[in-house]
Amino acid sequence: MNEFGRPIKPSDIKIRDSFWAREIDLVRDVVIPYQWDILNDRVKDASPSFVIHNFNAARRMNKLRTESPEFEEPAYTFRGFEVLPEDKDNPDPDKFYGFVFQDSDLYKFLEAVSYSLEISPDEKLEALADQVIDLIGDAQLENGYLDTYYILSGMDKSLTNLRDHHELYCLGHMIEGAVAYYEATGKDKFMKVAARYADYIDEKIGPEEGKLRGYPGHEIAEMALIRLYEATGIDKYLKLASYFIDERGKQPYYFDNEHKPENGAPLIRYHYHQAHLPVRQQTEAVGHAVRAVYLYSGMADMYRHSKDESLLNACKILWDSIVNTKMYLTGGIGATHIGESFSFLFDLPNDIAYTETCAAIGLVFFARRMLQVEPDIRYSDIMELALYNGVLSGISLDGRSFFYTNPLEVLPNACKNDERKFHIKPVRQKWFGCACCPPNIARLLTSIGSYAYTEQADRLFIHLYMTSSLQVKTSGGIYRVEVESSIIEDGNVTIKCIKIENESPVDNGDNNIDKNQKDKNNINNIIEASKLNLGIRIPGWAKKDYSVEGLEDRETYVEKGYLYASDLEDGDQIRLHFAIKPRLIMSNENVFENEGKLAVKRGPIVYCAEEADNGDKLWRLRIDTEGQIKESRETFGDVEATFLDVDGYRLRARAEEDDNALYREYVQDIKEKTQIRMIPYFLWANRGEGEMSVYLRGI
Amino acid sequence: MNEFGRPIKPSDIKIRDSFWAREIDLVRDVVIPYQWDILNDRVKDASPSFVIHNFNAARRMNKLRTESPEFEEPAYTFRGFEVLPEDKDNPDPDKFYGFVFQDSDLYKFLEAVSYSLEISPDEKLEALADQVIDLIGDAQLENGYLDTYYILSGMDKSLTNLRDHHELYCLGHMIEGAVAYYEATGKDKFMKVAARYADYIDEKIGPEEGKLRGYPGHEIAEMALIRLYEATGIDKYLKLASYFIDERGKQPYYFDNEHKPENGAPLIRYHYHQAHLPVRQQTEAVGHAVRAVYLYSGMADMYRHSKDESLLNACKILWDSIVNTKMYLTGGIGATHIGESFSFLFDLPNDIAYTETCAAIGLVFFARRMLQVEPDIRYSDIMELALYNGVLSGISLDGRSFFYTNPLEVLPNACKNDERKFHIKPVRQKWFGCACCPPNIARLLTSIGSYAYTEQADRLFIHLYMTSSLQVKTSGGIYRVEVESSIIEDGNVTIKCIKIENESPVDNGDNNIDKNQKDKNNINNIIEASKLNLGIRIPGWAKKDYSVEGLEDRETYVEKGYLYASDLEDGDQIRLHFAIKPRLIMSNENVFENEGKLAVKRGPIVYCAEEADNGDKLWRLRIDTEGQIKESRETFGDVEATFLDVDGYRLRARAEEDDNALYREYVQDIKEKTQIRMIPYFLWANRGEGEMSVYLRGI
Repeated sequence: MNEFGRPIKPSDIKIRDSFWAREIDLVRDVVIPYQWDILNDRVKDASPSFVIHNFNAARRMNKLRTESPEFEEPAYTFRGFEVLPEDKDNPDPDKFYGFVFQDSDLYKFLEAVSYSLEISPDEKLEALADQVIDLIGDAQLENGYLDTYYILSGMDKSLTNLRDHHELYCLGHMIEGAVAYYEATGKDKFMKVAARYADYIDEKIGPEEGKLRGYPGHEIAEMALIRLYEATGIDKYLKLASYFIDERGKQPYYFDNEHKPENGAPLIRYHYHQAHLPVRQQTEAVGHAVRAVYLYSGMADMYRHSKDESLLNACKILWDSIVNTKMYLTGGIGATHIGESFSFLFDLPNDIAYTETCAAIGLVFFARRMLQVEPDIRYSDIMELALYNGVLSGISLDGRSFFYTNPLEVLPNACKNDERKFHIKPVRQKWFGCACCPPNIARLLTSIGSYAYTEQADRLFIHLYMTSSLQVKTSGGIYRVEVESSIIEDGNVTIKCIKIENESPVDNGDNNIDKNQKDKNNINNIIEASKLNLGIRIPGWAKKDYSVEGLEDRETYVEKGYLYASDLEDGDQIRLHFAIKPRLIMSNENVFENEGKLAVKRGPIVYCAEEADNGDKLWRLRIDTEGQIKESRETFGDVEATFLDVDGYRLRARAEEDDNALYREYVQDIKEKTQIRMIPYFLWANRGEGEMSVYLRGI
Repeated sequence: MNEFGRPIKPSDIKIRDSFWAREIDLVRDVVIPYQWDILNDRVKDASPSFVIHNFNAARRMNKLRTESPEFEEPAYTFRGFEVLPEDKDNPDPDKFYGFVFQDSDLYKFLEAVSYSLEISPDEKLEALADQVIDLIGDAQLENGYLDTYYILSGMDKSLTNLRDHHELYCLGHMIEGAVAYYEATGKDKFMKVAARYADYIDEKIGPEEGKLRGYPGHEIAEMALIRLYEATGIDKYLKLASYFIDERGKQPYYFDNEHKPENGAPLIRYHYHQAHLPVRQQTEAVGHAVRAVYLYSGMADMYRHSKDESLLNACKILWDSIVNTKMYLTGGIGATHIGESFSFLFDLPNDIAYTETCAAIGLVFFARRMLQVEPDIRYSDIMELALYNGVLSGISLDGRSFFYTNPLEVLPNACKNDERKFHIKPVRQKWFGCACCPPNIARLLTSIGSYAYTEQADRLFIHLYMTSSLQVKTSGGIYRVEVESSIIEDGNVTIKCIKIENESPVDNGDNNIDKNQKDKNNINNIIEASKLNLGIRIPGWAKKDYSVEGLEDRETYVEKGYLYASDLEDGDQIRLHFAIKPRLIMSNENVFENEGKLAVKRGPIVYCAEEADNGDKLWRLRIDTEGQIKESRETFGDVEATFLDVDGYRLRARAEEDDNALYREYVQDIKEKTQIRMIPYFLWANRGEGEMSVYLRGI
């Protein structure tokens, strides 16, 4: 029995959705080639990546190491968290450059390439990936170690700064990329490289005598090792992940062993790494937001194997902490740029929000993993929200520029003149020195199908609606599920069940199906029933106003926001309508930042006002809370979307004797009726620089 | 002719005002003794000052230098901008500790002591001051140099870092203190010490061949040197001040000579020091707010001597830049803690405002100097505003704790948990490592009379109303001006003119009156008329609603907000009433931070709401813009003040199915009628920790 949900593999889903297929194609056609140029430092005016440079240097050094008797290992000296060439036009070919975690960009790139290959086989791209994997393999030390930062800078200090130096983070991303490539192509070279590095770490770190009792400063190895275990069945990877999760936050703090605690060193560092308490005792999401949700994702993954309820309980409490006290309306998380971190309860400033793209992506990871434990719209609603807003805003319509931070309010003047807001960019950037976000978006978008569907026990769950089809085996035969969705246009979804084969060779007693078999004719998705059973998400935003047709003759029930419909047969057709209409949204009264302010949301999509449509001083606009909101379907660049015209007012100051005065006695402003044009938040900043605001005041 | 205004000396004014006399007494009775303990590091739990420690060490070293043949000058090494003892309980008696500008605290202390002695002679305090001055003199090098930081750390590097190391700032404060002490006591030892240091600087810095073409990194020497010139009549001090003003901002930048411009060093550094442009070309107040207004004060002083209209013009433009685009309602300036600086136009965040007490004080300095050039309520209104609000909020009712920053909104939770707001304190502190503000308040409050009155040409100007009396000579006799003021209670002021002597020995052709003569029976205040002429300020806040009685038979006129009344005679009595009533204040629509928000001001006094009166979540309060505001006169600690009860509402969220949700569909909040208690802003945080807000939303 698949007690827990298993995501459907990207290759098993044919996505034809006008919205999501466009994003996937964009990654394949634009983002992946662009990123390859970036990784090779071939994009003018973009921060250089140095990733390929570093691996080439490590490969050359490895060759010398084995071939040259005079080879001497370099002695480590710390040259900064980010190392830049003294002469930027002439980097030393043998030196490491970039951030200490630079390797991870290449792994994320390969992960995106893998998913893309699963969906759209491409011999040339696969050959390129194979070459890159050869390069990675050539850079690996004989003992399995593989982080070009220390390989090039001096292995004598490797694993001495787990807190800051990301060797375990790079391992995590390497595994994610390697397993994805194996699943996409059946080729296991990269996975073997990753496993060797994991073996090396397993020999050096752990609870056993003689090993370092450390754990990752930046989490991800937890979920990655579990994925490696799931791909290989090798226990020690699960054990190592389990150790990492259990060891974190224990006293005495490992990071104190590494770093002599200086007089008055801020305690905040432990929180920053979620290492202030053992994870099961953590009740508030704190510290670096990406690290936090990566950790929680690993914890949720671990629960599927350990069934340790205390771990699940911690996951649920931390989930609630995020979504009830620390999450922006867009699904963005991380309210402060100081430590790229969660701020305190209900502190959600819009104009200096950090809301890193990677953090919204991490929240999607966490949500999908909680859904695997238990289908509940409390998770899928947030997953959908983050995807359509906080994640998608990270990439421009043309796929060539990216946001690292995704604020909910922008005043370009402030971004340029107020050092407190220098992290906020009014337009997307070509690339970043710390370029975690662009490849992270690419790997998420190309695997979006695996967030839309999971199979669990006797049922296929549909979490996100996109026009797509997939095949499901039951003991009574094979079904094709055809979803036609125009959900974000008009709220309509049709699900067709087509039986394509009667007989199905499922062994009900055996759930050790080889998930990694690469016979494309095989169907990987198996539910343990004789007919097709579905769990159909009723989005929270439509829970009060939706309709279902086609199930009138069946017993159905709704649990935790999922409509359970069983024993579907060939020709069954379910027509869903989710009332998708613009709604004014207010914040909890504890959110002092949003006092008196309203946002507009339509289904899962958050809207914003831009200067391009509404002129400047957006703060002078008022939404008429008793007015109308007109919807119109329009094209914007190459995207079709629903735009809103909201009844409202523009306030203007009355002329007074001294119009220049900063302060004056109160007189009512002049209220001019206006239509406030609002566009989907993820489309903002595609028309040059200007003010933007998600929230407007109501009147 | 006194072409320009001359402040009346503190000793010439008897202040009996219930409000201001209390502040002056507080400084004399509490602040000065407390600061003396602080300077000697005798206050438990307060940051140590090390000031007396440093001077003692310098004195001992000086003794060794002259007496011991083995004495060797220490070789300078930079140990940080603030030097703290390795073992905080055992500072090395021979080393310098504290900030590089620590000496200045002692000079500011002596300045406050001087004014206090002028008002209230006190033999014991004067003897203490004499001792301190002896100590200062003993620390001075033979060549006149006097900054204990370099004396103790290594003279080889003195004057090599004018940008950051405050030697000229310490000189400025030394002069201010020294001239004040001379004017208070007639003793010139301290002034001679200061003049010797000024002479030393004049030999080393200037436009002449072989001198450093530098200028102060932190301005104040400009106005101080002009004061020294005015006290001594020695031209070179005026010339040096003039050079400092003219040289600033010229290219090539002097600070670049001192500090190799590093690749990509932020240009902001020039702005920070107001050194980005020659001062006459500056049109926007930028950079460190205290430095800026100290510079502008020096420029205004210089204009009185040079009559260079381009300098005055720059002063006026910079004044407008501050008050029209960069000043808080409280007269606080400096919107960002990054560089303790002005932010960009109209960026006036309330909760992270820097609004250093010293900056508000500096704005008072600048205002008084502009008033000396030209009586105009545009200056005196702001002077009054800053005094009653941004300055007075810096000191607690009991005189034992102080604010460095004076925000307009405080959420204690944020100050503790949001690193962006760590500079904001929810309660006043006992002392600061960088303790510029407390002694600065002390010197201002003890000299408040010299801000209230100036004499200019044929007229006595009254800028601030406080119950007080002073004597004025005219060619027709001596008058006593008696002011009875309850202005901040009920708006009433009575000015009585009493002729006390008929004959007056004024030589109309001679304005070189020895201002420093110490014969207390002499009257220093001389107007060049045969009868008493007054310039009586009509505060801007009352300009639409005031009345004047007692001048019905005379020709009067109002110019730039001053009521000009001439030829007053014995027994004349002017009764003024300025309608002082609470008013709702709105901000210019460019101030995005204050959109939809209102403040309450009564006369010059800004009000705020505190949690102690109104419960928490102050952001949920709404002022009823059509409601009433009730005034009541109450005591608060040992102060009597007018408190306000403002008609308004408290909003409460309607109970919904999920009260914990961060976001929900808009429904109107429940509006509960309430009275919002508002207290004078300067009284906030005298009842422990809690929320505070100057601005509330209107409805």
